[in-house]
Amino acid sequence: MPFHDRPVFPRGFRCASRNVGLKPTAKDLALFVSDVDAAAAAVFTRNKFPGAPVLLGRETIKGGVLRAIFANSKVSNVATGTAGLENARRMAAAAATEVGSTPDKVLVSSTGVIGVRLPIETIEKGVQGMSADLGDDPIAGAEGIMTTDTYPKALSCSIGAATITWIAKGSGMIQPNMATMLSYIFTDAAFDAPALDRMLRQAVDVSFNMLSVDSDTSTSDTCALLANGLAGKVDERAFLEALTAGSIRMTEMLARDGEGATHLLRTTARGAKDLDEARTIARSLVNSPLIKTMVFGADPNVGRILMAVGKCVDCTIDRERTSAWINGHEVLRDGVRLDFDDGVVRTALGSEVVDIVVALGVGDAQATAYGCDLTQGYIDENAAYYSS
Amino acid sequence: MPFHDRPVFPRGFRCASRNVGLKPTAKDLALFVSDVDAAAAAVFTRNKFPGAPVLLGRETIKGGVLRAIFANSKVSNVATGTAGLENARRMAAAAATEVGSTPDKVLVSSTGVIGVRLPIETIEKGVQGMSADLGDDPIAGAEGIMTTDTYPKALSCSIGAATITWIAKGSGMIQPNMATMLSYIFTDAAFDAPALDRMLRQAVDVSFNMLSVDSDTSTSDTCALLANGLAGKVDERAFLEALTAGSIRMTEMLARDGEGATHLLRTTARGAKDLDEARTIARSLVNSPLIKTMVFGADPNVGRILMAVGKCVDCTIDRERTSAWINGHEVLRDGVRLDFDDGVVRTALGSEVVDIVVALGVGDAQATAYGCDLTQGYIDENAAYYSS
Repeated sequence: MPFHDRPVFPRGFRCASRNVGLKPTAKDLALFVSDVDAAAAAVFTRNKFPGAPVLLGRETIKGGVLRAIFANSKVSNVATGTAGLENARRMAAAAATEVGSTPDKVLVSSTGVIGVRLPIETIEKGVQGMSADLGDDPIAGAEGIMTTDTYPKALSCSIGAATITWIAKGSGMIQPNMATMLSYIFTDAAFDAPALDRMLRQAVDVSFNMLSVDSDTSTSDTCALLANGLAGKVDERAFLEALTAGSIRMTEMLARDGEGATHLLRTTARGAKDLDEARTIARSLVNSPLIKTMVFGADPNVGRILMAVGKCVDCTIDRERTSAWINGHEVLRDGVRLDFDDGVVRTALGSEVVDIVVALGVGDAQATAYGCDLTQGYIDENAAYYSS
Repeated sequence: MPFHDRPVFPRGFRCASRNVGLKPTAKDLALFVSDVDAAAAAVFTRNKFPGAPVLLGRETIKGGVLRAIFANSKVSNVATGTAGLENARRMAAAAATEVGSTPDKVLVSSTGVIGVRLPIETIEKGVQGMSADLGDDPIAGAEGIMTTDTYPKALSCSIGAATITWIAKGSGMIQPNMATMLSYIFTDAAFDAPALDRMLRQAVDVSFNMLSVDSDTSTSDTCALLANGLAGKVDERAFLEALTAGSIRMTEMLARDGEGATHLLRTTARGAKDLDEARTIARSLVNSPLIKTMVFGADPNVGRILMAVGKCVDCTIDRERTSAWINGHEVLRDGVRLDFDDGVVRTALGSEVVDIVVALGVGDAQATAYGCDLTQGYIDENAAYYSS
């Protein structure tokens, strides 16, 4: 899947971002607009305390049509009661007025601290005039939704005459259990909302849903796919393939930029009894603090791989058929640690991308999970996130 | 439950520890002996890659009688294949010879790095003469089983004419899912093995099984209870009560001394639909990296409590009935963050013991989990544990 060197937007999509004082100087509002109504689908967090924008978004997406996405960072509008829901509606209304549409065609997102009241007047005032700033650089929009991300994330590729563009933010409170953080996908290919919904769920299932930075599931996760049709029809199978590949690529970007991360960690369970077990084991590996610190320290304490597999007590695991590789170097065979060269494995663990593959030998299912190492940086960022 | 100021042994139990070169200078062997055969019960890790001592221990405990426990630290004898099992048997035989018993009455434990061959000859030679060192200070035995613990852990109390003594070690790769790390409990009360088994499981269920330092489940967890009967019969109900209270106290000691920990974190879910859900939610709170770093930083980012409750997607949770307290200060009421005094909650979070209580309002079940904060110290210890 060849991605563009510099991300571009599909025809008819533009975005803008600005600082309106929610943060000291960084961008804190982002607006994404399609020139025409776009068919749309979205998936949201399964956390039982979804933010007000998620509650509203579930209603909005039922219409299957979006014209704009309006997001703020710094404050997440979660655990804010009925006032929070009212504020989410006011955000949608303000953006609709600004782009000349109706609130039922505006998806809103808020990301940041939980439980703090949204400064809605600032946001309503702040969005005024943003239409005039709309431009064709996806990075500008990505900047407006960042929280602890170290850089704005956008990606695009061509698929036939059409383009697909991903814009997303991470990077903590992220565990696979529905969609993901904020991830917006735009295309000028023509599909109806049910087709988009079907394809989005398939792509998310093997990408954003297999991402975990810290096993904590955000209350604001939102992943939306908008198709304005300006490039006409595209082969559905090829589109799904591109959608999936780009979503995995974006998942890797988010994992690599997890809070404090210094490595992208990919863990694959193969030969599992079924897909559920493969996913459970891959996630157990990617979430294990002892695996994550092993990767951070490039310390070949490979027995921890067995520990993380073995703690999946409800999975089918045959002690004597379990083998493992780190970046291609076999370290465990049939449940026994091999007498490998420490230096070689240490070097492998030092790579920016660390692949741990476990073969279970009990079936045909396979799954890959995406995460990162656990470092002092994660602690530093999260011990004082609220206050800083 | 009044515990002794200095831990003592029950009648007829003694222990010794020494350094035989597995570690540079710290104690690495521990021997616990009863003067007479003791009725015994034990529970072990549910990890699917149990160490050789656990495989052997499951056989041994079927006999219901123990005379000694023999343990080494530094190397765990896990993922070592059939040679590992043979080495565990050799350890039991060597200790049996030393104490004048038979191998089927010796429980062995090994704790430390996974996948490294046990230096069995060193251990066989090392145990020789340990009988002569046996003394009545439980701390001496606790020293022999330490890995990353910062201090040796022992505890005792009187129950009628009898004594109960706990000796345990932590402090990483610890998540409730069976027994715990190594925890040996000795008493001179008289009970048969089935009664001990029943009581041990009840006590472990609300103590060691609710402990989590890092959500990783060790391959070597062992918790054994030995009763040599030298103090005669004790009321079973009172004994179970004392056994439970001491096991909870030891659980708190292990949690507080979790790798890198600076706080004991206790999380209670009450008003849950049933016990399973109460336990799931209490564990989700105690394991959440974002809760753990909040406690470390004493940063009142209390929305994370809702996040950690809400990610238990299979539990019954009513958004509008969920409230929470930090050390008695209400911070969330009916799903909404209260407008509390930041300074007061910050001070509460700064206490050495932090209690987070969540009321769910959907039933009568309650459970408490025990853990600690997540700090740079955990990262430092685990990024280079194998090499150091």
